Amino acid sequence: MRRKKIKKRTQEYKKHVGQIPGTLVYTGQKSDKDFHVECFDYTKDTIEESVLLNIADAISYKETDSVTWINVDGLKHTDQIENIGKQYDLHPLVLEDIVNTTQRPKIDEYEDYLFVVLKMLYYDKDENIVIEQVSFVLGKNYVITFQESEGDVFDSIRERLRFANGRIRGLKSDYLLYALIDAVVDNYFSIIETLGNKIEDLETELFEGHARENINIEVQQLKREILKVRRAIFPLREIINRIEKGDHPLIYKRTITYYRDIYDHLIQVSENIDIYREMIWSLMDMYMTTISNKMNEVMKVLTIMSTIFIPLTFLAGIYGMNFEYIPELKYRYGYFVLLGVMVLLFIALLFYFKRKKWL
Amino acid sequence: MRRKKIKKRTQEYKKHVGQIPGTLVYTGQKSDKDFHVECFDYTKDTIEESVLLNIADAISYKETDSVTWINVDGLKHTDQIENIGKQYDLHPLVLEDIVNTTQRPKIDEYEDYLFVVLKMLYYDKDENIVIEQVSFVLGKNYVITFQESEGDVFDSIRERLRFANGRIRGLKSDYLLYALIDAVVDNYFSIIETLGNKIEDLETELFEGHARENINIEVQQLKREILKVRRAIFPLREIINRIEKGDHPLIYKRTITYYRDIYDHLIQVSENIDIYREMIWSLMDMYMTTISNKMNEVMKVLTIMSTIFIPLTFLAGIYGMNFEYIPELKYRYGYFVLLGVMVLLFIALLFYFKRKKWL
Amino acid sequence: MRRKKIKKRTQEYKKHVGQIPGTLVYTGQKSDKDFHVECFDYTKDTIEESVLLNIADAISYKETDSVTWINVDGLKHTDQIENIGKQYDLHPLVLEDIVNTTQRPKIDEYEDYLFVVLKMLYYDKDENIVIEQVSFVLGKNYVITFQESEGDVFDSIRERLRFANGRIRGLKSDYLLYALIDAVVDNYFSIIETLGNKIEDLETELFEGHARENINIEVQQLKREILKVRRAIFPLREIINRIEKGDHPLIYKRTITYYRDIYDHLIQVSENIDIYREMIWSLMDMYMTTISNKMNEVMKVLTIMSTIFIPLTFLAGIYGMNFEYIPELKYRYGYFVLLGVMVLLFIALLFYFKRKKWL
Amino acid sequence: MRRKKIKKRTQEYKKHVGQIPGTLVYTGQKSDKDFHVECFDYTKDTIEESVLLNIADAISYKETDSVTWINVDGLKHTDQIENIGKQYDLHPLVLEDIVNTTQRPKIDEYEDYLFVVLKMLYYDKDENIVIEQVSFVLGKNYVITFQESEGDVFDSIRERLRFANGRIRGLKSDYLLYALIDAVVDNYFSIIETLGNKIEDLETELFEGHARENINIEVQQLKREILKVRRAIFPLREIINRIEKGDHPLIYKRTITYYRDIYDHLIQVSENIDIYREMIWSLMDMYMTTISNKMNEVMKVLTIMSTIFIPLTFLAGIYGMNFEYIPELKYRYGYFVLLGVMVLLFIALLFYFKRKKWL
Amino acid sequence: MRRKKIKKRTQEYKKHVGQIPGTLVYTGQKSDKDFHVECFDYTKDTIEESVLLNIADAISYKETDSVTWINVDGLKHTDQIENIGKQYDLHPLVLEDIVNTTQRPKIDEYEDYLFVVLKMLYYDKDENIVIEQVSFVLGKNYVITFQESEGDVFDSIRERLRFANGRIRGLKSDYLLYALIDAVVDNYFSIIETLGNKIEDLETELFEGHARENINIEVQQLKREILKVRRAIFPLREIINRIEKGDHPLIYKRTITYYRDIYDHLIQVSENIDIYREMIWSLMDMYMTTISNKMNEVMKVLTIMSTIFIPLTFLAGIYGMNFEYIPELKYRYGYFVLLGVMVLLFIALLFYFKRKKWL
Repeated sequence: MRRKKIKKRTQEYKKHVGQIPGTLVYTGQKSDKDFHVECFDYTKDTIEESVLLNIADAISYKETDSVTWINVDGLKHTDQIENIGKQYDLHPLVLEDIVNTTQRPKIDEYEDYLFVVLKMLYYDKDENIVIEQVSFVLGKNYVITFQESEGDVFDSIRERLRFANGRIRGLKSDYLLYALIDAVVDNYFSIIETLGNKIEDLETELFEGHARENINIEVQQLKREILKVRRAIFPLREIINRIEKGDHPLIYKRTITYYRDIYDHLIQVSENIDIYREMIWSLMDMYMTTISNKMNEVMKVLTIMSTIFIPLTFLAGIYGMNFEYIPELKYRYGYFVLLGVMVLLFIALLFYFKRKKWL
Repeated sequence: MRRKKIKKRTQEYKKHVGQIPGTLVYTGQKSDKDFHVECFDYTKDTIEESVLLNIADAISYKETDSVTWINVDGLKHTDQIENIGKQYDLHPLVLEDIVNTTQRPKIDEYEDYLFVVLKMLYYDKDENIVIEQVSFVLGKNYVITFQESEGDVFDSIRERLRFANGRIRGLKSDYLLYALIDAVVDNYFSIIETLGNKIEDLETELFEGHARENINIEVQQLKREILKVRRAIFPLREIINRIEKGDHPLIYKRTITYYRDIYDHLIQVSENIDIYREMIWSLMDMYMTTISNKMNEVMKVLTIMSTIFIPLTFLAGIYGMNFEYIPELKYRYGYFVLLGVMVLLFIALLFYFKRKKWL
Repeated sequence: MRRKKIKKRTQEYKKHVGQIPGTLVYTGQKSDKDFHVECFDYTKDTIEESVLLNIADAISYKETDSVTWINVDGLKHTDQIENIGKQYDLHPLVLEDIVNTTQRPKIDEYEDYLFVVLKMLYYDKDENIVIEQVSFVLGKNYVITFQESEGDVFDSIRERLRFANGRIRGLKSDYLLYALIDAVVDNYFSIIETLGNKIEDLETELFEGHARENINIEVQQLKREILKVRRAIFPLREIINRIEKGDHPLIYKRTITYYRDIYDHLIQVSENIDIYREMIWSLMDMYMTTISNKMNEVMKVLTIMSTIFIPLTFLAGIYGMNFEYIPELKYRYGYFVLLGVMVLLFIALLFYFKRKKWL
Repeated sequence: MRRKKIKKRTQEYKKHVGQIPGTLVYTGQKSDKDFHVECFDYTKDTIEESVLLNIADAISYKETDSVTWINVDGLKHTDQIENIGKQYDLHPLVLEDIVNTTQRPKIDEYEDYLFVVLKMLYYDKDENIVIEQVSFVLGKNYVITFQESEGDVFDSIRERLRFANGRIRGLKSDYLLYALIDAVVDNYFSIIETLGNKIEDLETELFEGHARENINIEVQQLKREILKVRRAIFPLREIINRIEKGDHPLIYKRTITYYRDIYDHLIQVSENIDIYREMIWSLMDMYMTTISNKMNEVMKVLTIMSTIFIPLTFLAGIYGMNFEYIPELKYRYGYFVLLGVMVLLFIALLFYFKRKKWL
Repeated sequence: MRRKKIKKRTQEYKKHVGQIPGTLVYTGQKSDKDFHVECFDYTKDTIEESVLLNIADAISYKETDSVTWINVDGLKHTDQIENIGKQYDLHPLVLEDIVNTTQRPKIDEYEDYLFVVLKMLYYDKDENIVIEQVSFVLGKNYVITFQESEGDVFDSIRERLRFANGRIRGLKSDYLLYALIDAVVDNYFSIIETLGNKIEDLETELFEGHARENINIEVQQLKREILKVRRAIFPLREIINRIEKGDHPLIYKRTITYYRDIYDHLIQVSENIDIYREMIWSLMDMYMTTISNKMNEVMKVLTIMSTIFIPLTFLAGIYGMNFEYIPELKYRYGYFVLLGVMVLLFIALLFYFKRKKWL
């Protein structure tokens, strides 16, 4: 299959035209990172942590009663992914969705597992928002997570598992899925906070009147960023709602309360994003008003200068004429009288502008 | 857990990334106010009012048949809150929500209690809107309220309890909850009234044409204020609707009518807020029109002055030329004829502008 | 209870903070009109009309089989209202809503009566829209109406009752309620017509290009008026829909068709209001375009005058210089040649503007 | 009943205030056309066509098994309409709606007939859209249509009836109703096409840059026309949907497919109308941009001319001064040097504007 | 029936007024292409491919157990289409919809077949979007596709059929329909990608500030293109949803998952289209801001030049006057002093503009 160079700028969803459904094609930036499988197998009292280089080693955990978290990094190795798919009986379309990183957040319920795709957001070192797709497969006693590359927001979960903090070790795989999604959603709050600060900085600049020339470009870029975050976060609400409302046998009643908590957080995040959108619109409005006000000021200066000096110049022009008989020219104090008239006119015009509140 | 300095400007929702669910972290401005528990225990005929310094003293009221209102001020003392949680069997997520003051108004129904979070709004002495979170736990024969700090809108309830005004002493805890929420909602009306007056003042300024330079900043700030109030009030409608429609065993049929009354009030408040939003948009429109009109006026003055004096100056220039042979210069009344021509031109141009309605 | 001066400008909904629910507080303009009760008691064949000064006299009609219409004017006499409430067993919140004239149109269904609040709209002599609240209580064989002051839109009903026109005398109280609401809704059409005419007048002014300076203020005021009417009328649709769809035992199947007719009228009114809103937006658009066009015209005049005379003045300036040796000055026809050049330049520039379609 | 002069400009819905429900008042332009009844009575094999002058003659068709189409022209003769009402047992509100030509399209289901009101649209000879109300009463074996005046879109139906084209003669009255409504809806397509052409013409004008002065008025009028058409057509969708979905005994299952076909056509028409609305908004946007661009161009011309000649004129002014000692004036080639400087300055400024892309 | 010349510019839906329902009228561009039928008849193990010139030859496949795909090119031959209709018992309205290429995407469920209309989108060699209607009839063991002309997006399906790639040969006709629709939808992604690139190019131009004069026309055209694509794609979502949710006996449970996959893709496409619409609006905003900023710059240049030279020219005018007694003119260094004053004034004004940040 021919593969054209993929442009990775605005649009993030694509699909390879004409391929057979269920073909695995990795659509992300193909980093050269090695394939990497991390494994946590725990019960209330025991925990076993291991790093596997081959997915086949993971299958032993499938049959045990303990809860297993298998974290797969590096979606480029599609053969390995296919391997996992076979071992855990995943539908071909699930595998296709895992490696297609342009997926919209979604949930698919299968008979003996749940498949959830969502977006992990973080700022990279250049302060750009990075969107990384994370897929979750929740089975009876396991959760498999698939990430594009190493580095994630799950370190606090690892700590809690290792040191048996909180409830996590004592509960089932559905609570583990909750904890992982919660970690992703928690991170949205810091994205939101950064966006909020950026908006406020722009706003302050505009309020104080010394906005840079290209501030409207920055506003547009912020608008786009918010659009991007919105698109990554909004579909998640519906997903969590379906987990909460649906009665999939893998989700125990006890954990529903926790999912509802995530849902509340998502509503908060969404509400903030919508407020930011409205604020961005206000910013654009303010910018336009600022431009208009500046133009007004420029026009006033021009008008004041012209209106004062054009008549004066006319007067000077009159007495610059070469007519043979212009009686005023002969008067001894004609010049001084004229200068006096000019000063009076000058003052009168200033007064006029003062009254019009242009000065 | 590391805690970064929290910026308390626009965004109000936050959550501490990576913490174990159910950890109590107070997110408000940590005032140094002491912890403070106020207690009303009453039946139709008796009332006992007390101030406790330790929450353990409150537990005795739990078992009695009388209705108890426990009002807790000072959410900073998270250990005390946890204590209450243990004594009244509250879910850890409920306690987390109580101390997280960035909560969105919400209702959570548990088996033997109802948990309601809402926002109390009032203007502080600098005329800024203060939003304080109040949480309510409604149990079989008690209501516990949690406030960030002292000072609230419940004084009228205290009076009614003490002097047995109205129905309140004769009814159950569900009516007490109604009375408390009603007091909060009543206060929204005065917020709304103040906002309305602010809008009208701005409008009058704009209508009368002598708007200050920075009026658009004020309009934007008002817009933001309305956004803030809206966000605090709107979710409450759904909450009251759920109390009214749901059939939680703690809400008696008799009090449903009263909750419906709150609901009607909230619809009124919401409608007004939406009208204010629309009016704010109109204000911005009017401001833009005002700017354009002013610009137009400035341009007219410039154009009139230039259009009148530029040709006159040109004429003067003609006769200021030093050509040896310019016959007009020799005429005895040349100068006066020219002055006459200029006056005629002046009048003609004035007439022209008059006809164009520029003067 | 302290009562602050009530501002009766834009916001119309208020409530007295901290009062006991069910307290009667009249919130309208307290006219000094006397309390006034009008009574129609009729069967198919008989009719008795009376004016009562005390509400106690009305109670005798309650037990009879005949239909009774009791019309109460003057809500200021809250004690009398309370009296009626007691005699007809009305819920305290109903009485509170009757005297609180800032109520949103609503319907409350009680076991043996229906309570409907709506807004009567009419233009006063200064062409301002007046909104008066009318409350209806529909009982088994009576309708009680409560109005703020004398004067209403029910005169045609009175005539029909007196002279047994149409069906009204032969039918039950539910048809009387229909007839009364229908009279209120019929009056909306004349409001709508007046608004329509106002919009058209403004439009014509704008289309014909000689709009007054402050036309945008008028447009804004019209916008507000429409907003006000909208708020008074829109909730009514839902109310009528509930009467029509609900199966309250007091509404007979035979009259449902009539209520559906009111509903159709309300849809027409609402649709017109929404069209007017859209037209108002168009008007604002047109006004902005008009301003821009005017500015353009002003700029063109300035540009044409300046562009023609500035170069000519420059030429005159050249030959006004005092250099000792300027050969052209010596030429006998230098002056006339220059004048010729100037005329040519003038014509060329005129031609240029003609081609640019500025003239 | 007093009848005020009815203004027939924008608003089309009215109702006579205070009249008894069911009173017939014709609200259209009372043409002096005679009352006119056209009758088609047909079975699969026979057809009888007649023109009646009195409605009483129509009653004989009511009892036969054949399908009868009675087409009534001239709603002004309300007594005749009332006559039909009596003969066919129509509800008084139905008759009121038939003659009230300001009716919104609607459907009313009665036990043994269906009542449908819709709008017939066509362009008159001055290219104005005419909206004529057509009412349909569908009975067991008859359809009665009521039109304001002669002339309609039903000629093709008449042909099909006469010559037994297609299915129409072999089917029941529900198919006849379908055929009639289909003829009305088919005509909407030509309205839509004309509107589309008008929009495109305006667009072309704007795209090509030589828009007339008052094009914005035309755009506004087109906008209004679309609004008008929209209001006439949109409610029809719901009506057809109700015929299709509802299971009124008069509509046979076999014809449902045909009504669904009308529904599809209406969706197409509606979609087009909404696209036109969006295009009109774009046109307004383009017009505003055009104005701004023109203003920009005017300003550039002014600025270029002023910026070039103002400094040159200043230089000429310098050497026009009458100081006794200005050394340059004495230089033999002073004048020519100055002219050279001026030319250089001129060229430099032209170059500057070139670089700024103003030329 | 008279047929007017059909204008094929913006509006795409039309219908021939007054025709009998079920009459086949081809509304596309009548290419002279021959009628052309392509046939694939396959089971898991066998495949037979043939090209027929007459539709009658296709009927033999109808009765077999194998799956048959009949692809018809050239809708102009309405007699042949009618023939197919007869052989496969299709409803006359279905045939009418097949040849009416202005159809909106839709699904009609009949008892023993499903009828689906959708739009195939591709760019032609001039980079214009071409919209071609494809109709599908899904029967128990066959799929018939109807296309306006040769050339389509189904080549990959043909390959898969021939070489038995993937699941396709082993499954029923419902999977074939899925594969065909999937091929159409896959192609939408490349349309979307091209649109995205166009938007980005325009955006870059605007961001970098050197936008061409007529960029707003391009933006408008892009807006229209997106509108067009939107209209073709959006209705498809509902169609797929109905296939997925409905339980038509022809769609097996096993293939539902695949249709859900198409649905997800359509949601992605739709979301992107909506994002593009919002981006286009932002582009227009940016363009307007760009114009305003340019105007501001032009005004500043004019104002700076005028404000500097107008007073200087006035000074020169003063000393160009011919009064007999102007003492300054006699001073030996008067000229140089004045030049000095002028330079100082010049510098002062420059400084003033610098401080105002105009330079």
